[in-house]
Amino acid sequence: MKITLLDGSIREFSEPKSVKEIATSIATSLGKKAVGGIVDEYKIVPSDAVIYFDCQLEIITERHEQYLNVINHTAALVTALAIKELHPKVNIAEIFIEDDDEFALTFNLEPRLKIDSLAEITKQAEKIIKENITIEVETIEPKDFKKVAHDNPLLEELMKVNLCANGNALLFKIKDLYIISKFAALTSTGELKIAESQQLSGSYFLGSEKNKMLQRINGMGGVKAEDFKTRVAKKEERKANDHRKIGKDLEIFHLDQLIGQGLPIWLPNGTILKQEIKKYLMEKEWEYDFVQIETPVIGSSELYKTSGHWDHYRDDMFAPMTMGNEELVLKPMSCPHHVSVYRQQPRSYRDLPIRYAEHALQHRYESSGSLTGLERVRAMELTDSHIFVRPDQLKSEFKRCFNLITEVLRTFDIQIDYLSLSLRDPKDKEKYFPDDNMWNKAEAELEDTLKELNLVYKTMIGEAAFYGPKLDIQIRTALNHEITVSTLQLDFLLPEKFDLNYINPINEEERPIMIHRGLIGTYERFISVLLEQTKGVLPLWCSPKQIKIIPVNIENDLQYCEELKDLFKKEYLRTEIDLRDERLNYKIRDAQINKIPFQLVIGKNEAQNKTVTYRRYGSEEQITVSVADFLKLVKQEIVTKGIIV
Amino acid sequence: MKITLLDGSIREFSEPKSVKEIATSIATSLGKKAVGGIVDEYKIVPSDAVIYFDCQLEIITERHEQYLNVINHTAALVTALAIKELHPKVNIAEIFIEDDDEFALTFNLEPRLKIDSLAEITKQAEKIIKENITIEVETIEPKDFKKVAHDNPLLEELMKVNLCANGNALLFKIKDLYIISKFAALTSTGELKIAESQQLSGSYFLGSEKNKMLQRINGMGGVKAEDFKTRVAKKEERKANDHRKIGKDLEIFHLDQLIGQGLPIWLPNGTILKQEIKKYLMEKEWEYDFVQIETPVIGSSELYKTSGHWDHYRDDMFAPMTMGNEELVLKPMSCPHHVSVYRQQPRSYRDLPIRYAEHALQHRYESSGSLTGLERVRAMELTDSHIFVRPDQLKSEFKRCFNLITEVLRTFDIQIDYLSLSLRDPKDKEKYFPDDNMWNKAEAELEDTLKELNLVYKTMIGEAAFYGPKLDIQIRTALNHEITVSTLQLDFLLPEKFDLNYINPINEEERPIMIHRGLIGTYERFISVLLEQTKGVLPLWCSPKQIKIIPVNIENDLQYCEELKDLFKKEYLRTEIDLRDERLNYKIRDAQINKIPFQLVIGKNEAQNKTVTYRRYGSEEQITVSVADFLKLVKQEIVTKGIIV
Repeated sequence: MKITLLDGSIREFSEPKSVKEIATSIATSLGKKAVGGIVDEYKIVPSDAVIYFDCQLEIITERHEQYLNVINHTAALVTALAIKELHPKVNIAEIFIEDDDEFALTFNLEPRLKIDSLAEITKQAEKIIKENITIEVETIEPKDFKKVAHDNPLLEELMKVNLCANGNALLFKIKDLYIISKFAALTSTGELKIAESQQLSGSYFLGSEKNKMLQRINGMGGVKAEDFKTRVAKKEERKANDHRKIGKDLEIFHLDQLIGQGLPIWLPNGTILKQEIKKYLMEKEWEYDFVQIETPVIGSSELYKTSGHWDHYRDDMFAPMTMGNEELVLKPMSCPHHVSVYRQQPRSYRDLPIRYAEHALQHRYESSGSLTGLERVRAMELTDSHIFVRPDQLKSEFKRCFNLITEVLRTFDIQIDYLSLSLRDPKDKEKYFPDDNMWNKAEAELEDTLKELNLVYKTMIGEAAFYGPKLDIQIRTALNHEITVSTLQLDFLLPEKFDLNYINPINEEERPIMIHRGLIGTYERFISVLLEQTKGVLPLWCSPKQIKIIPVNIENDLQYCEELKDLFKKEYLRTEIDLRDERLNYKIRDAQINKIPFQLVIGKNEAQNKTVTYRRYGSEEQITVSVADFLKLVKQEIVTKGIIV
Repeated sequence: MKITLLDGSIREFSEPKSVKEIATSIATSLGKKAVGGIVDEYKIVPSDAVIYFDCQLEIITERHEQYLNVINHTAALVTALAIKELHPKVNIAEIFIEDDDEFALTFNLEPRLKIDSLAEITKQAEKIIKENITIEVETIEPKDFKKVAHDNPLLEELMKVNLCANGNALLFKIKDLYIISKFAALTSTGELKIAESQQLSGSYFLGSEKNKMLQRINGMGGVKAEDFKTRVAKKEERKANDHRKIGKDLEIFHLDQLIGQGLPIWLPNGTILKQEIKKYLMEKEWEYDFVQIETPVIGSSELYKTSGHWDHYRDDMFAPMTMGNEELVLKPMSCPHHVSVYRQQPRSYRDLPIRYAEHALQHRYESSGSLTGLERVRAMELTDSHIFVRPDQLKSEFKRCFNLITEVLRTFDIQIDYLSLSLRDPKDKEKYFPDDNMWNKAEAELEDTLKELNLVYKTMIGEAAFYGPKLDIQIRTALNHEITVSTLQLDFLLPEKFDLNYINPINEEERPIMIHRGLIGTYERFISVLLEQTKGVLPLWCSPKQIKIIPVNIENDLQYCEELKDLFKKEYLRTEIDLRDERLNYKIRDAQINKIPFQLVIGKNEAQNKTVTYRRYGSEEQITVSVADFLKLVKQEIVTKGIIV
């Protein structure tokens, strides 16, 4: 058996070895530090896991980015045992390790736990840690599933759907508790110091809403008290920066279960924000010679069969609707619709590039467990485009699009994490259209272009779209999720499938190439990022509320305030007068909390002199200027989007 | 039996009488002129039809607006017989009378008719007219359906679904041909002079695409040759003004069967037109203090069960999609979604009126036979709004909305046909929510408001929405269809169903009233009207193409042309350079045909003097001005929308 290590060196073993044994064979100290391993780049296994086949192996130690996840996973196991000891009738279900430094554990218990049980569970976990119980990993064959799980029907279900490559299930065992989980853990409870249960909520089993609602505990593990404190504080800060909290505070969006899961409503403030961004993007698209089109949000299943989405993407699509002799489906992507527009008339080489842009509503059936505020939704509006180019135009057009994207992201001052060159996994015959020539050509073209652009990027195998390779712009969210916003994708496949062509100078048919472009990705996701990165302090031009007028004395000053408001309204400035019966200072503080760019405190003097006294968000300074000067200042900042050239 | 005539007078008869007999009892001459009758305002019957029950009766004579329909219906019967005589194996199916002065007749025949058979059929119809055959009407009892229809399975089907109030079917009989049709006809073929078959196409039986495709003949009947000629010419003119033709010429929209029926794609030109109109409407809505929101295009069936749409509107909805534990459906209306936003927080009497506007995509499952270009579609974007008011605000808010609507329609110079006060039919318990008190109150409030507005309107019974009465703005299309664009509807029902409230000054809960507002109806329908009424000559501000630059000599003048184009682009003016290798006059003529508002003919002089020579659409005059003056002129016209104040 050959094991390839991270540095590229290869070690050979004549028989199966555990991760710890392999680590020890490299260095005894490494063996001691190993808390788990990463097999073939993505499969995380415990240090006791035995390796049977040739593979790549990365050892997880304290310094590894996965280390915290191992600690949290161990804490989840300890917490599960604690619940079991306190409530022997509990059925433990799944463990999830969240990127955001926490674990989640689901279970079924009657009567249901109350919030005040969490302290008790944490206390019981402390006892288990002190007992220093060994955490074992066992391989269970299907014939033994029933036996091992005889008192827990959920566990048997889980074993069936969590088989390893050898057809067996991998189970963690602490005392008489079995838990299925494909992840790494410390080898005994005593290596941990803390396993804290922090939150109680509801969750569906295996993500399927057809089942009964289980309970769910979220928590954290720690090995050092001081570290743990810091991590808890950090997580709280991240949660405060979570767009869901900011979005609620600023009344940006709302999710209504009666309408449906993952279907956000844009409240008045969110609609302004979204429409202002859209106006800006469309201006940019005009500048870059895109033409807007609008296509239906549904399409026949025939259409998606032709495009290949039906074969490669159907799991992510909504259920089809049979109507008359048609079968219709909510569109998951607009590519085939744009192809239909291209095919409306014969195209000449002189017409290309043809750049169709559509801010297009799409529907994808994300699992209910993965839905997260605006970040992951089922209905989304993509800043989409499909560009039809000749082969000789491919690189220059790609670069032009990349310029557009960076220009736009810079306007919003978006901090990106990294660029990803997303290629296919040639072994994955299911996901990817199997035409090696086509893939090699497309991937080579793309890599070439990225080099000419002098970009630094990570290469990600298996992240390509089913029709071609892509460049993704990756961002890390407040919850530490890694997400894609903008994207540029090459596509030699759809032009083939739909038999697209253009007439070349010598009157022959040739095949165009398609570039799929997501300018800022979807509005939903982009606005979630914008809210997090700005902490809700939006630039004036797209801020839902721009000016708050605070009369010093409502009775005396209201008339002038209303004059100002009417004047601002004519200039399309979003203005409110604070009419509440509160003290002046309270109102000023409140406008600051609500992150309104301009607060105008209007009293007798202002009315007399036809001036305004303004205060910017985040500043203590009060400045008095003429109304005309104020308008000039505000309009200038809106036009330039606050960017000083 | 009591018969109420149009003038309100009542005639009593001791036994059943035919329409002709009743007409004769009024005046012998009227009996002679009667070609049919209208029973209870909407049921059109032949003059031989016997009246058994108390009813309202209107006699149709030559002067009546239904007279042409009677002529065309008679021609359809004659044509059916002509086909039968030429092709004895034919199965005649349905007759439709189209508002647009024509009949349609569907039938099944193998082998299928070719287009050149139409002349032959018209000739055969001539013979039948000369034979002067009596057209009889028979009442057939269900037990005899099979017998009468023994050689025509389609006819038997039709009889089953076309029962009269007494449970029998009404059949027309000419010679041995039976045709089912609930309409009026002349009493013998000789009263007609012409029955012309004009068009051949395909059609589904009973509108259901599950069936085999039938053939369809459209044609016209006439009693005087001269009249007939005029009518044919008029119809041809109407067809030339049909928005489907204009929309195709101007590349506004496209229907792609592979995407789905009745799902228009907005091509680049159409998208500009639609988005320019939207920008204008949203500015108006800002002026009138509406706030924009955006809500999902789907909703759970639970939501529509609560709102009552499920009970009263389900036939017009798309099929539900079952996903997880949810049943989701494409929204046919946004009311429940807007209610959800209202319910987001407690509302005070001070917050009202709350005016939510949404340019909202909706889906309604119109029968495939009724789909007509952009006029009747399955996916449509409604210029929607729901306004939540206190009872004391209802009238003033209604008037404010009516002002907004008239202001907007005036901007487009839309010619309306009439205003319709659409009330419920109290007898229709299925369609209308059964709360007499509520209806009486709502209808009285609405009528009162219309009177205060001094409006002239028609009262239409049975045209209300299921939740309340409405004011509809009616327009007549090029095809002579009567359609609704703008609408204002009162709703006391949904606030009840969703238990909406606001807190009044003495801290009690009160129920708001809803106003549903369609500003210009749907973009699809409105643009179909706009194209027809303008004949495609759109105002500069919303014209997809605004300026065509025509170089006198491509080689020499191109550089200056491109300078101009770049300059115009910065001003968001939609400009094209005509680069084709054609003669100058051809290009000028072509720009006129394409209805482009400004044509710029650019030669040496213009380049030297930095001027432009322009020509307006429809004018022969060429005017030379400086570039700055031209820009000023154009921008001024765009800002004012061409309206001289």
